[in-house]
Amino acid sequence: MATLTPSTRPDGLESELRKSLGEGSVIDDPEVLAARADDWSGWPSGTPRLLVTPSDTGGVARCLSICNAHRVAVVVQGGRTGLAGGAAARTGEVMLALDKLAGVEDIDTIGGTMTVRAGTTLEAAQAAARGRGMELEIDLGARGSCQIGGVIATNAGGIRVIGTGMTRAHVLGLEVVLADGTVLDDMNTMIKNNSGFDLKQLFIGSEGTLGVVTRAVLRLSPERPGVVTALAALATTGDATTALATARSALGSSLSAFEAMWSDYVTFMSERGGYSRPFDAVPPLSVIIEARGRDESVERSKLEALLADGLEAGWLTDATIAASTDQARRIWAMRDEGPAEYGRLFQAIVPFDVSIPIRSMIGTADRIVGDIRAGWPEAVPLTYGHIGDANLHLVVGFTAPIPDDAKLAISTLVYEAVGAVGGAVSAEHGIGQLKKPWLPLSRTPAAIELMRCMKSTFDPANILNPGRVI
Amino acid sequence: MATLTPSTRPDGLESELRKSLGEGSVIDDPEVLAARADDWSGWPSGTPRLLVTPSDTGGVARCLSICNAHRVAVVVQGGRTGLAGGAAARTGEVMLALDKLAGVEDIDTIGGTMTVRAGTTLEAAQAAARGRGMELEIDLGARGSCQIGGVIATNAGGIRVIGTGMTRAHVLGLEVVLADGTVLDDMNTMIKNNSGFDLKQLFIGSEGTLGVVTRAVLRLSPERPGVVTALAALATTGDATTALATARSALGSSLSAFEAMWSDYVTFMSERGGYSRPFDAVPPLSVIIEARGRDESVERSKLEALLADGLEAGWLTDATIAASTDQARRIWAMRDEGPAEYGRLFQAIVPFDVSIPIRSMIGTADRIVGDIRAGWPEAVPLTYGHIGDANLHLVVGFTAPIPDDAKLAISTLVYEAVGAVGGAVSAEHGIGQLKKPWLPLSRTPAAIELMRCMKSTFDPANILNPGRVI
Repeated sequence: MATLTPSTRPDGLESELRKSLGEGSVIDDPEVLAARADDWSGWPSGTPRLLVTPSDTGGVARCLSICNAHRVAVVVQGGRTGLAGGAAARTGEVMLALDKLAGVEDIDTIGGTMTVRAGTTLEAAQAAARGRGMELEIDLGARGSCQIGGVIATNAGGIRVIGTGMTRAHVLGLEVVLADGTVLDDMNTMIKNNSGFDLKQLFIGSEGTLGVVTRAVLRLSPERPGVVTALAALATTGDATTALATARSALGSSLSAFEAMWSDYVTFMSERGGYSRPFDAVPPLSVIIEARGRDESVERSKLEALLADGLEAGWLTDATIAASTDQARRIWAMRDEGPAEYGRLFQAIVPFDVSIPIRSMIGTADRIVGDIRAGWPEAVPLTYGHIGDANLHLVVGFTAPIPDDAKLAISTLVYEAVGAVGGAVSAEHGIGQLKKPWLPLSRTPAAIELMRCMKSTFDPANILNPGRVI
Repeated sequence: MATLTPSTRPDGLESELRKSLGEGSVIDDPEVLAARADDWSGWPSGTPRLLVTPSDTGGVARCLSICNAHRVAVVVQGGRTGLAGGAAARTGEVMLALDKLAGVEDIDTIGGTMTVRAGTTLEAAQAAARGRGMELEIDLGARGSCQIGGVIATNAGGIRVIGTGMTRAHVLGLEVVLADGTVLDDMNTMIKNNSGFDLKQLFIGSEGTLGVVTRAVLRLSPERPGVVTALAALATTGDATTALATARSALGSSLSAFEAMWSDYVTFMSERGGYSRPFDAVPPLSVIIEARGRDESVERSKLEALLADGLEAGWLTDATIAASTDQARRIWAMRDEGPAEYGRLFQAIVPFDVSIPIRSMIGTADRIVGDIRAGWPEAVPLTYGHIGDANLHLVVGFTAPIPDDAKLAISTLVYEAVGAVGGAVSAEHGIGQLKKPWLPLSRTPAAIELMRCMKSTFDPANILNPGRVI
């Protein structure tokens, strides 16, 4: 056992946890704690007190009940792939990890449901569904590491939202442990159930501040193996809205991705990331359009008709449809590998995940980027996003370190511009610790007051993920 | 002005309301009050105190603030088409009607959203969307009378849920007035918005007990004018699950209705309702299958292939596809006109709206109907429902009046059987006053305790729809 430091000294809390959960589920090794204290956001973590790894719902309940009695803060950790610092531990917190509470319990191909434990990775859940000819229509880049509990707690988005909605749309039932250890069984399996308040909605997207998700019932759909991917060059950025409306109308519910990349992004990826430039000249806006359905040939012909329409109407200047899975992968690589490339090449980045009403998006994005270029001529803005979902990702990169006040000034510029057009400071990554100061730009004082009221009702001792969201 | 009775005597409350909202918005005419005190459930109403009809959100806020200060109960009324007695007034209540707060404020065809006031009828909202080439994918039989606010407050279901989800799936933003008159502006317009708790979810489906919906942002989709309707005769009731799974897989997101009618229902409608019997012999289960998409010919060929498959595999014994809108209307009439027909022919009915997990539905429904026939030989059970949504409607009809204890015994039989298989006592109609005693069969004590806790947090004086839901 590691040397005891003040923050991990066995006290009443630790001995109660060990007695209740077993020695193997309560870890105080400082190296283990330090290695697990952060998340993908890079938000600075503190020195946590303990790591607790229950293997069932009862263990989670006992852990919370003991921590609540001791008034000790708990940070809930899934795969720690969040980008808002929600899972980054603060000094003195107990880290509650769901890793051992993993596995798919049931797949009902008739009802189209999966019953799954919170610590299951998204990828494992997807694979279990496919093994039964079904599809779990939630997909994120972090699929191999992120856990179902965290996906639900953060109402994660991802690349299929335009077709199948945010995580919330896929959750039928939840089991949640409240701050005092009460287990709330709301494991509904049915699409229609208007029997009293739909309590599970409270825990979806509240980032673990109101309760800890331990099990879930998720919706499954029949597999849609027919996927066709196109890359389209738009005549102007302003044509994005026409392109989107036409794609929605032509592809209907087959439209499974509409991902825009501004010329700054494509130029960066072509020149510095080494990705082959898809068109002779970099267009003002490149859009990945994906159609997904049962039958690939049906989807292909719909997509071909859409692109022919666009070329004739003039909002498209060029387009290519992937002829193979490998070509499709190359199209997606330009979009997916952005974070890896700019992580490698920049010394400092200021990243954004915001929503902007679609009709204001292009103008707002162009204006923000213009202001950043004017204020910080050395900045490299990279603009891209799920514009069909009103979700813009903007990364402002620097090849040399920049001071914190420059980061703050850029953030202020972006978030105020977003707030001014009725946008939201977080589209899909959540608030966590990172965006807490900016929340009032997206929500009214009455709404924030109501959130506080709910928080103090559900967690009067403020032990669950304190300092996150509100 | 009508003669004053004790329950409508001007008191401090009434004069304050008149002063704040104007004479024309505060009505005490007993005839008007009596005519508006009930809802479609037929639940017995009492003698309400006043009718208040604000024409804007501020008026709703002032009304609630005054009633809250006086500790006077308010029943919120939309189109009063609910079937759970939620809008039926109790003695002494102020009826708050949203009729004057009507109209579509904005349609954004680019973002795919509609901003609409709560008192707008569903039909008017649907028509406004179609006028812009868009579709509001919520549809109910009560469309001409029900109001958007009530549709949201009850999370209404309807006939398109299998394809496009309950009302919740269509709500992006809400404006809600809380019990104390606080206006909560949560009028988000974007599909992705993870900026703090998604408060609007609390008010969807809580039947006006936590706040009054005054305005909403709803999602719109491109129109899908290609609709094809089939009527299929299943070999056995047990084939329903195979038929459903095959239809889901073959039609994907085009599957817009899957409505089952047991032989008891079809026989009743053919013999007593005078609807033409669709097949030579009444099959064990008749299913209306509807495909909806952009292009009718595409949908027709998918539906034809599905039916050919079913005939070859043996789970279908006969099927017909409507060749015209008129034929489609005749197929739907058999399903839609049920309530009118049995309302006309029976002296007493005990109606049910329950959900049952799909894999248990057929067995449970057959068992319940068997038990009812055994216990009440004179009963006429009519069995039908949205089985693709796990939603069974069962009506137990009697050609002579029956005592209340028989109604109670039948309800106990059905709700206990539903609860035993993990079903829900309300699928789409809500709890209201009518189903309140049965709620514990579908929800755990911890869940009901949490609902109570939320109710007392949001509405400490218990003025909003008291006695409903919990």
